[in-house]
Amino acid sequence: MKIVRFSAGDDPRYGILDSGPDGDDLVVLVGDPMFQGFETTGERVPLAGVKLLAPVIPRSKVVAVGKNYADHAKEMGGEVPDHPIIFLKPNTSVIGTGDAIVLPPDSKQVEHEAELAIVIGSVAKNVRAEDYASVVFGYTVANDVTARDIQKLDGQWARAKSYDTFCPLGPVIETEFDFTDARIEARVDGVVKQQGTTADMIFGIPEIVAFVSRVFTLLPGDVILTGTPAGVGPIISGQVVDVTVAGIGTLSNPVR
Amino acid sequence: MKIVRFSAGDDPRYGILDSGPDGDDLVVLVGDPMFQGFETTGERVPLAGVKLLAPVIPRSKVVAVGKNYADHAKEMGGEVPDHPIIFLKPNTSVIGTGDAIVLPPDSKQVEHEAELAIVIGSVAKNVRAEDYASVVFGYTVANDVTARDIQKLDGQWARAKSYDTFCPLGPVIETEFDFTDARIEARVDGVVKQQGTTADMIFGIPEIVAFVSRVFTLLPGDVILTGTPAGVGPIISGQVVDVTVAGIGTLSNPVR
Repeated sequence: MKIVRFSAGDDPRYGILDSGPDGDDLVVLVGDPMFQGFETTGERVPLAGVKLLAPVIPRSKVVAVGKNYADHAKEMGGEVPDHPIIFLKPNTSVIGTGDAIVLPPDSKQVEHEAELAIVIGSVAKNVRAEDYASVVFGYTVANDVTARDIQKLDGQWARAKSYDTFCPLGPVIETEFDFTDARIEARVDGVVKQQGTTADMIFGIPEIVAFVSRVFTLLPGDVILTGTPAGVGPIISGQVVDVTVAGIGTLSNPVR
Repeated sequence: MKIVRFSAGDDPRYGILDSGPDGDDLVVLVGDPMFQGFETTGERVPLAGVKLLAPVIPRSKVVAVGKNYADHAKEMGGEVPDHPIIFLKPNTSVIGTGDAIVLPPDSKQVEHEAELAIVIGSVAKNVRAEDYASVVFGYTVANDVTARDIQKLDGQWARAKSYDTFCPLGPVIETEFDFTDARIEARVDGVVKQQGTTADMIFGIPEIVAFVSRVFTLLPGDVILTGTPAGVGPIISGQVVDVTVAGIGTLSNPVR
């Protein structure tokens, strides 16, 4: 099931994507399905007539795992870590599909990082790897936008990854996603720049959920970015960057 | 004016600390003064009869500045940075005065870091240093609890500083604080471990607010930790760590 958050010119609402022969519709939900379940209002609206929003607003944190694909760890000149290296992005960096990634004046080198993201659905602490599914609401697509020059300058990654608009999420949350071998791809103006598969993640979804929930209590709406494959590179004003995870969808953002 | 958030066994409320000859009272406020102003209910309750809570729940982020006192940068073996090095702590790490700092099993070396914290009061982006005061609600005391071994192991500081209970805040928010030369001190079981003055900060409050608001939009309730002076050191189960900023108060937390 693909969940969207959308606006038809009014307050944000939630819907379920329903693809039919006459095009894609949204089945409108009574409220946020994470908290209010999947009761529908009976209303259907055409997808084409709405603006999609980030499908989740992280209430507490966006956690991200660095260097979780060996080929990307290598291109960054680093070793493959023996445990997940995590960092945080603030919820103020979250935007939806179609929203612009705004290049900050502090950086001369902003880069895309295509990622699969986990959306947490319940309060969770010290989750065992084998129980990961019980705390996951679904999966979405993320672009872990990074000011590479600032990342190198600071050593610490927080600033380079926290600028406003640096966490595009969407277009949907897929609640029944098979992450064992999903294609993940980034394209800049249609040209493929990153191409990988979630099968190549060093730490898998169960291990990541277990690891991060040892550190902090996860809350419903928290998002965990699971790392990026090789091929990261710069984006400049006027380009469009698309990130696709097969089985979820394509997150598309202009750059300005 | 000293603002507290408290519980008298019921839902959290806010009050103004009023010290009188017969002891300290709280003048109860109608709501969160950050959003609802300083209207009072007319009720007074004795401070001794309530539990103080963290005076603010960061709705978006806790930002922290590393190595902002030269003597601490030196004890950590690092250079004095030419710009603030920032990192993030999640709101799930926040506790109040009196709450226990819980040592995680992942670490063998958890340390105290006494800090002055800025509480943001309005939506703020690209604030000029000279305008910092217009976005500050007040100031509180923080303990930037850090798992030092994990900080060294990871290189990135996020995990080491993000464990649940690793961000004690309180006991009050002082809205009229003079930060030019305030004594800052940490004591473990009454023994002074850190002693400094905010006069020795490398980057001052106006510069920090300007710098971080270039990176992200600050939201009301966001908290900025401003760095720690030399003398950081381990805390173990059974100890009590007190952090004092003169003019604000003492934040006291047992360790277990």
